[in-house]
Amino acid sequence: MKLNIALLAGDGIGPEVIDQAVKVCDAIAKKHNHDINWKPALTGAAAIDAVGEPYPDETHEICANADAVLFGAIGHPRFDNDPSAKVRPEQGLLKMRQKLGLFANVRPTFTFPSLIDKSPLKRDRIEGTDLIILRELTGGIYFGERGRKDGGNTAFDTMTYQRFEIERLAKKGFDMAMKRSKKLCCVDKANVLESSRLWRETVQAMEKDYPEVEVTYEFIDAVAMRLIQWPKGYDVIITANLFGDILTDEASVIAGSMGLMPSSSVGSKVSLYEPIHGSYPQAAGKDIANPLATVLSAAMLFEDMNMTQEAEEIRRVVNKSLAEGYVTEDLADGGKSYKTSEVGDWLASNI
Amino acid sequence: MKLNIALLAGDGIGPEVIDQAVKVCDAIAKKHNHDINWKPALTGAAAIDAVGEPYPDETHEICANADAVLFGAIGHPRFDNDPSAKVRPEQGLLKMRQKLGLFANVRPTFTFPSLIDKSPLKRDRIEGTDLIILRELTGGIYFGERGRKDGGNTAFDTMTYQRFEIERLAKKGFDMAMKRSKKLCCVDKANVLESSRLWRETVQAMEKDYPEVEVTYEFIDAVAMRLIQWPKGYDVIITANLFGDILTDEASVIAGSMGLMPSSSVGSKVSLYEPIHGSYPQAAGKDIANPLATVLSAAMLFEDMNMTQEAEEIRRVVNKSLAEGYVTEDLADGGKSYKTSEVGDWLASNI
Ligand SMILES: CC(C)[C@H](C(=O)O)[C@@H](O)C(=O)O
Ligand SMILES: CC(C)[C@H](C(=O)O)[C@@H](O)C(=O)O
Repeated sequence: MKLNIALLAGDGIGPEVIDQAVKVCDAIAKKHNHDINWKPALTGAAAIDAVGEPYPDETHEICANADAVLFGAIGHPRFDNDPSAKVRPEQGLLKMRQKLGLFANVRPTFTFPSLIDKSPLKRDRIEGTDLIILRELTGGIYFGERGRKDGGNTAFDTMTYQRFEIERLAKKGFDMAMKRSKKLCCVDKANVLESSRLWRETVQAMEKDYPEVEVTYEFIDAVAMRLIQWPKGYDVIITANLFGDILTDEASVIAGSMGLMPSSSVGSKVSLYEPIHGSYPQAAGKDIANPLATVLSAAMLFEDMNMTQEAEEIRRVVNKSLAEGYVTEDLADGGKSYKTSEVGDWLASNI
Repeated sequence: MKLNIALLAGDGIGPEVIDQAVKVCDAIAKKHNHDINWKPALTGAAAIDAVGEPYPDETHEICANADAVLFGAIGHPRFDNDPSAKVRPEQGLLKMRQKLGLFANVRPTFTFPSLIDKSPLKRDRIEGTDLIILRELTGGIYFGERGRKDGGNTAFDTMTYQRFEIERLAKKGFDMAMKRSKKLCCVDKANVLESSRLWRETVQAMEKDYPEVEVTYEFIDAVAMRLIQWPKGYDVIITANLFGDILTDEASVIAGSMGLMPSSSVGSKVSLYEPIHGSYPQAAGKDIANPLATVLSAAMLFEDMNMTQEAEEIRRVVNKSLAEGYVTEDLADGGKSYKTSEVGDWLASNI
């Protein structure tokens, strides 16, 4: 098969982890006689530095015409503590999500047998966790009107949702639940927010189309607690953009490491695959970042393209590296560890 | 000393846990020759049922003229799944916070030696945790404009902050940090939200007045993760209303039980003391709810009134009940447990 994949390395450790995913994908392609045409493009702070824009039109063209997008990370600390910065790397990410119509972010949370003791949570609480958070990604307070008033002394952001935005996300959630344990949890703050009440109303109206799915409604504050207390109580969670941002990062502690968690963003023609970790600027250029989340994101890419066998092989080689301790220092528990590039080489050669 | 305390039992288990706190306070008053004048008043679903309003003017009068307010819990499930309900118990809570000017919610998080193994988190991660989350309580998306458009198909909520709202909350945070380990963390989403950028800007401008305090700025998604990974990394956290709602509930898992976590809400003349748990309707009327969070909230009340000795004695008797296993079933680990009212009696008689 011939695949065109847009390659957005981004900032910080992005380029390093992307490199390893490319090695692994190329090895898979070679083995299965696929032909991957990588199309590198600029994004984030790297793109601001080069062309003054975090998601240039050229990059969008490349993404829109690709079969899929593989993405590293975005963000640079020099923008974070500068509230007056006019152009920010994150704007590129948001623009990309919106322009590519990526309205659903899929973040699976599961445990790795060999890593379970690295979690801050006790083994019996997390062993066997297998949940998916489906985060709305192109609406809500991320995209509503915002600004200043009163000479800059008042600031506002608007959380807006339209019924169709909730419906299309919820539909994905129901369909996913049907393929899994038929449990769907809608997470909102309907005791305070009008937009959450629209979420609840919309999802309730859809229940009749999925009589087999057991739907529950919980408040975001309660879920922030229960997700840690008993993650096995959840299967598919659907939630708004901001709530999903918080819950997905929180859920990453279950696996014991952010460096392992992949994600996909889907919606229209092209889908995007990225690790959930950030650009981790402190580690940039040091060849120490954990590439596994990006490699597992590539596995999600193959899976979605119905190349199940290829996806399985990638997951298998990742598990092998974990089991044999061929890992970066964050997973090495003070024992022998390997460089980012060494782990990539090892994975590729074990495909 | 003569104390007028407004007593707002509220809904669900509220009345039961409040009763125990009253027993303990009365025992303390007797011992120290204080004279507590309890002023019961209606709130929440109970008030809706009685007078059609969740925070009636009469209740406000009683609170506004009291020396302090002791509050149970609010909320009833019959309103939660009814997006069309016009009057909701939670509105009472929000109106009360606003009318009493309770702009800062103080939620300490700490561990109890005898309960540390009940936490879903591993002992070494949490032992010695001692942090305070200071949540803004009368602004943000809880109080901004909200509504529907397009015939009900679009819903919006507005997160608004004014500089003075951030300043007064941050001032409390800085002052608290000065009395503790001089570390303050401002939690926001400044990479996306304009209101968060105003938070960051405002707090940054205040740093020069507190040269000894080390201030850090972190994103809410990252903190949702780090709070579980390494809670000992935090001391005083300041944050917006919605973020604080989520983080404080999340933080309660550290202690291993929501049934133990007290809080105070302060701002103007009168302060309010309440457990952080909700109305737990499934347990209402069963005499099984854990009253300790409410009792410890009463301890915060005495502390704030400069009755440090009284506060200490309450905390001591609570610790004693934990150490001796004179606790409700949620803390009994399948062993012998006691009724809510029995625990209250035991605490009072041990004062
Ligand atoms: C970088 C930031 C804007 C982004 C978000 O909040 O969506 C990130 O946290 C994420 O979750 O992908
Ligand atoms: C009941 C609800 C409106 C309330 C809130 O969100 O503030 C509660 O969760 C709390 O934290 O006191």
